[in-house]
Amino acid sequence: MSGNTFGKLFSVTTFGESHGPAIGCVIDGCPPGMALTEADIQADLDRRKPGTSRHVTQRQEPDRVEILSGVYQGVTTGTPIALLIRNEDQRSKDYGNIAESFRPGHADYTYWHKYGVRDPRGGGRSSARLTAPVVGAGAVARKWLREQYGTEFLGCMRALGDIDVPFDGWEHVHANPFFAATGDAALLARMEDAMDQLRRDGDSIGARIDVIARGVPVGWGQPIYDKLDADIAYAMMGINAVKGVEIGAGFASVAQRGSEHGDELTQEGFVGNHAGGVLGGISTGQDITVSLAIKPTSSIRVPRRSIDKEGNPALVETFGRHDPCVGIRATPIAEAMLALVLIDHALMHRAQCGDVKVATPRLT
Amino acid sequence: MSGNTFGKLFSVTTFGESHGPAIGCVIDGCPPGMALTEADIQADLDRRKPGTSRHVTQRQEPDRVEILSGVYQGVTTGTPIALLIRNEDQRSKDYGNIAESFRPGHADYTYWHKYGVRDPRGGGRSSARLTAPVVGAGAVARKWLREQYGTEFLGCMRALGDIDVPFDGWEHVHANPFFAATGDAALLARMEDAMDQLRRDGDSIGARIDVIARGVPVGWGQPIYDKLDADIAYAMMGINAVKGVEIGAGFASVAQRGSEHGDELTQEGFVGNHAGGVLGGISTGQDITVSLAIKPTSSIRVPRRSIDKEGNPALVETFGRHDPCVGIRATPIAEAMLALVLIDHALMHRAQCGDVKVATPRLT
Amino acid sequence: MSGNTFGKLFSVTTFGESHGPAIGCVIDGCPPGMALTEADIQADLDRRKPGTSRHVTQRQEPDRVEILSGVYQGVTTGTPIALLIRNEDQRSKDYGNIAESFRPGHADYTYWHKYGVRDPRGGGRSSARLTAPVVGAGAVARKWLREQYGTEFLGCMRALGDIDVPFDGWEHVHANPFFAATGDAALLARMEDAMDQLRRDGDSIGARIDVIARGVPVGWGQPIYDKLDADIAYAMMGINAVKGVEIGAGFASVAQRGSEHGDELTQEGFVGNHAGGVLGGISTGQDITVSLAIKPTSSIRVPRRSIDKEGNPALVETFGRHDPCVGIRATPIAEAMLALVLIDHALMHRAQCGDVKVATPRLT
Amino acid sequence: MSGNTFGKLFSVTTFGESHGPAIGCVIDGCPPGMALTEADIQADLDRRKPGTSRHVTQRQEPDRVEILSGVYQGVTTGTPIALLIRNEDQRSKDYGNIAESFRPGHADYTYWHKYGVRDPRGGGRSSARLTAPVVGAGAVARKWLREQYGTEFLGCMRALGDIDVPFDGWEHVHANPFFAATGDAALLARMEDAMDQLRRDGDSIGARIDVIARGVPVGWGQPIYDKLDADIAYAMMGINAVKGVEIGAGFASVAQRGSEHGDELTQEGFVGNHAGGVLGGISTGQDITVSLAIKPTSSIRVPRRSIDKEGNPALVETFGRHDPCVGIRATPIAEAMLALVLIDHALMHRAQCGDVKVATPRLT
Repeated sequence: MSGNTFGKLFSVTTFGESHGPAIGCVIDGCPPGMALTEADIQADLDRRKPGTSRHVTQRQEPDRVEILSGVYQGVTTGTPIALLIRNEDQRSKDYGNIAESFRPGHADYTYWHKYGVRDPRGGGRSSARLTAPVVGAGAVARKWLREQYGTEFLGCMRALGDIDVPFDGWEHVHANPFFAATGDAALLARMEDAMDQLRRDGDSIGARIDVIARGVPVGWGQPIYDKLDADIAYAMMGINAVKGVEIGAGFASVAQRGSEHGDELTQEGFVGNHAGGVLGGISTGQDITVSLAIKPTSSIRVPRRSIDKEGNPALVETFGRHDPCVGIRATPIAEAMLALVLIDHALMHRAQCGDVKVATPRLT
Repeated sequence: MSGNTFGKLFSVTTFGESHGPAIGCVIDGCPPGMALTEADIQADLDRRKPGTSRHVTQRQEPDRVEILSGVYQGVTTGTPIALLIRNEDQRSKDYGNIAESFRPGHADYTYWHKYGVRDPRGGGRSSARLTAPVVGAGAVARKWLREQYGTEFLGCMRALGDIDVPFDGWEHVHANPFFAATGDAALLARMEDAMDQLRRDGDSIGARIDVIARGVPVGWGQPIYDKLDADIAYAMMGINAVKGVEIGAGFASVAQRGSEHGDELTQEGFVGNHAGGVLGGISTGQDITVSLAIKPTSSIRVPRRSIDKEGNPALVETFGRHDPCVGIRATPIAEAMLALVLIDHALMHRAQCGDVKVATPRLT
Repeated sequence: MSGNTFGKLFSVTTFGESHGPAIGCVIDGCPPGMALTEADIQADLDRRKPGTSRHVTQRQEPDRVEILSGVYQGVTTGTPIALLIRNEDQRSKDYGNIAESFRPGHADYTYWHKYGVRDPRGGGRSSARLTAPVVGAGAVARKWLREQYGTEFLGCMRALGDIDVPFDGWEHVHANPFFAATGDAALLARMEDAMDQLRRDGDSIGARIDVIARGVPVGWGQPIYDKLDADIAYAMMGINAVKGVEIGAGFASVAQRGSEHGDELTQEGFVGNHAGGVLGGISTGQDITVSLAIKPTSSIRVPRRSIDKEGNPALVETFGRHDPCVGIRATPIAEAMLALVLIDHALMHRAQCGDVKVATPRLT
Repeated sequence: MSGNTFGKLFSVTTFGESHGPAIGCVIDGCPPGMALTEADIQADLDRRKPGTSRHVTQRQEPDRVEILSGVYQGVTTGTPIALLIRNEDQRSKDYGNIAESFRPGHADYTYWHKYGVRDPRGGGRSSARLTAPVVGAGAVARKWLREQYGTEFLGCMRALGDIDVPFDGWEHVHANPFFAATGDAALLARMEDAMDQLRRDGDSIGARIDVIARGVPVGWGQPIYDKLDADIAYAMMGINAVKGVEIGAGFASVAQRGSEHGDELTQEGFVGNHAGGVLGGISTGQDITVSLAIKPTSSIRVPRRSIDKEGNPALVETFGRHDPCVGIRATPIAEAMLALVLIDHALMHRAQCGDVKVATPRLT
């Protein structure tokens, strides 16, 4: 209820701050009987972790996960699965000067006013570091959905600042440091150059990310409020730095006519997917397609005007280690969040309508 | 839990179908001691109701609300407020031919596959008619927020299909049938012409809507999952036909640099609002600014390919009464949903941090 | 969240006050595909309704239920089922003198201090009249559980004040006005005499009620907090006037030894049921057995000392129509509440562990 | 939702098994600004921990708590507080023979049938060891309630098997190993003897515990379902081995008349407390009084009949270390649970009605 639990039937409660002793989560509601080891989780954490290229924060965190409960002899028991990740490379001194003033674009100002107290080290609770436990929980969800329904989650970068990135195929995503679905070497070099220039400028840039779920049975979602797309929007807008979410045709649907937008059906299935795999809040069996706008990182070296706690003017420069484009590491996070939304709806559907595995209709 | 309740502390549970005997909702959690009459609610319902101009559905529904509980001698008692609206102009025969096949772009296909049974009359539960109780509940929320904090909600249309609509001032919004914030007579005439042509074509069009909350204290929202912007995205994406949601700079933030996007602070307050009034999931005290993409209405007269329940090809033409642009009536709905999100966070903040009414900082 | 919704997956949100225009509820989460008519619900309401004998309140309420939604062509659709019951025999004048002072044993004092405002007519929201919608919702739950699992709910009175009532067989329960499971005519006459004397005295008396669920599969319930017995205790203690709840051996287990209490298992099943059908919070497949203590009705004609809103001494006599023993009508209510607990756990179990209908083991 | 979270606004999610690497919890919703150290929590854990006398289990667990998050510079920040307790004295071999058969009176049978898999070491998730994190979370709740409202929680044993224990004053509770509120040396010696005999017999015994909350403001609780007493019953019945719960007069109210039971009011306050401090589900400002029946420990050395997983007859003797009367250590657990219920209602009341600290009326 107080904003640190995600999901209703597959509930993930996270804890921790960027520079505290540890971060982690408790997963309540994972079905029993699934094989699960730390290695299953570590692989996804490694895709998200800092320090994997020169384009992301150089904080060195192995993000090694420990399963504290809920697994017996390598099998989930249906009881809570606690995941623990110790923080190892906290350098709180890097953040010394931001304890007293509010970084523009950051949660400093709002946390201070809300709570009257805040942990300023590395952004405390508002740090993107807190997406690590989510990725861990997402790995558990993905494994279950894959085994039960064959559902897969895929994400890629579609724009790095003003550089649009084409979609040339999922096979490219892990062959470059940007999760770009392209093998266009010239474009990738341009992206690297842009990032290098940004670092020299001490500035940051936004990004656009696409994420999809494939192999989703028809029928997941709720009628009015916990619509599948509403819950996806909630999940995505909740990721640090996200400022916009689209499902299917998204904002392009504004200029479409009904005769163009509404996906026709034939005996072979839907003939298009402007809907993004969701109609009336319920999955159609097609790919769920989502697009995210991610703002530029707020922690930058460019000096910026602000005020301190007493309201006096202050100039803020953020040193320390940061991602010049938080959008890069957002791809595995968005995949994890989408998985968490879907497993919750999978379980809810099973509660309401029984365990009938509806045949996925043929898709376009 | 099963998707028909909105909100946690100010919970609105709706019921009803488009052509059933009645629609309505139960509001649980309205604070005691507020003056409330049916007239307070009716005003907002009248802004949403059908038949107010030739550009919206001609279904004649007075949408007269009856308060069944929770108010004693004109004052809320803290117990559930039930609102009842009888359906009066159901013409189920208009929909006869859609009971057996699935309208493209509609929830018919997904409801059928999810539940194995559906009420096809007027879209049943998936009808936009079910936004009426939400607008009613929103009126209660708006009254309380206005009286307690001076919070106001305003919305307007910013695009009708490919016609962009400028923002010239809130005073124009109720002087035209589109909720357009402009007095540009030529533009309004062009919009009327476009709508008339659409009706002749039997087709529909999308829209973009902006909605803001003004007078929101700093400090509302939760740290990680129930972020204020995440809950807003959830609320907005849950409105019928919405396919995209932006907060603040939205998708434009992709191409921005951090030195441009992050709103600086001076002693006079924030010098911009790219954040849309939310940082780290918590309100800044500035206007909350939201933008929505609304797809074109799926019910159109243009014949479209589909299949029936047995999977045989079918041609679907939707007769009956429809909005050629559901985006028009979406404005009061989006305002109501934003109010419902904010009252929930207002109450949650009060639970967590006490009833301190934080002075709203000076705003840009 | 604000205390007017019961259940998580089969959620019942009630509304209304004793003397307002109507009472009712919204059931969210009823599985689709079940045949349901108002007659299915009315039968249970009739068992609870006032005026059925001279021993209960003489308020004349037909308690006629109207289904407003969620049922199409006689079949549940999976969407919310709203039940409406109009109040017809409100005589608010009967309660005139209690608007200003607090009836001993009543919620008057606490509602006033909590909310600063209250509806005093007939106890307003705190009236036992509000159990009618619960019984209605319970009828829906019972029908589903009976059809899916063969689960049945049975209740009877075991003590009327200091008169202990033996259990001679369920067949007697509906052959007397007390829900007593006995055909002992002398005892029943003694009970009638006691009630008649009470009415002459203007006083009231407590009761003890037993309620069981039969045909519950093994495996329903949660491990630590939403234990089946914990949720049953919550449900039962929430019924008006209940002051004690026992599961299985209840308070008798205090003086038992482990070698006596712990029910042994043989190939024929459990050899006893001190556990009351629940071990570790999860159903064993045996009868769930529950016992309730119900306090004497607080509204009595005997003058009692109290204070008024200003704190001045006041003498309170409650006229109007009351049950001299609220325990009588508590039997069908307790059955309904037990059904609501069980359907919630049935659905939750299905979410977690799939739709395997575990064979009920042979029972004692 | 899956049964491992207690509370809505002050939510405690526990994790861990008796013989896994660690147990712990995440507290979400603790208000910011309260001083908190591990020592504040350790004191309560020490009252509950095993091995404090020869009458409880001899498992040696220091139950040392580590705060992993939510506290910065010794002050709560409003973000989740994670508590970690490493298990140190697991001797799983002690339980070897119970992995294949079901101990009478234990959760073995039901967990196995529910999940199809279970952690048998020390009862796994169903072990009373899992009350340690609850006591930890309760310590945080108690501190906040004490500082904000002066609320205190007190508990004592009232019966050890068939030995009734009088209440002679709270000062005695910590001067004996039973939490008995008596200084009667002869009685205490009799209790010690009874326990010694039980250990020799390899058997166990039940207990009755009273627990109260003192200094509760008037007005906490909800009207219909989340009644304060309903939530207390839920909390108490959820404690391992509890089979009965009473509020106020409890089962004695069955034989009372309304003219006796209903507590009159004078200008000095209530003249009795049969209600147990709750009327209509809302606190009266008097002491909240609760009584619990605790069954005899199921793990005993006396051989008992059972079956194994294949349904074959088996004789079960439980070796290892056990509490011959789990009721002894239940006292601090019941206090903690009561504190968790009350803080949740305190926060909920603040959400609904603002932060008015209602003056506690003069009490009897």
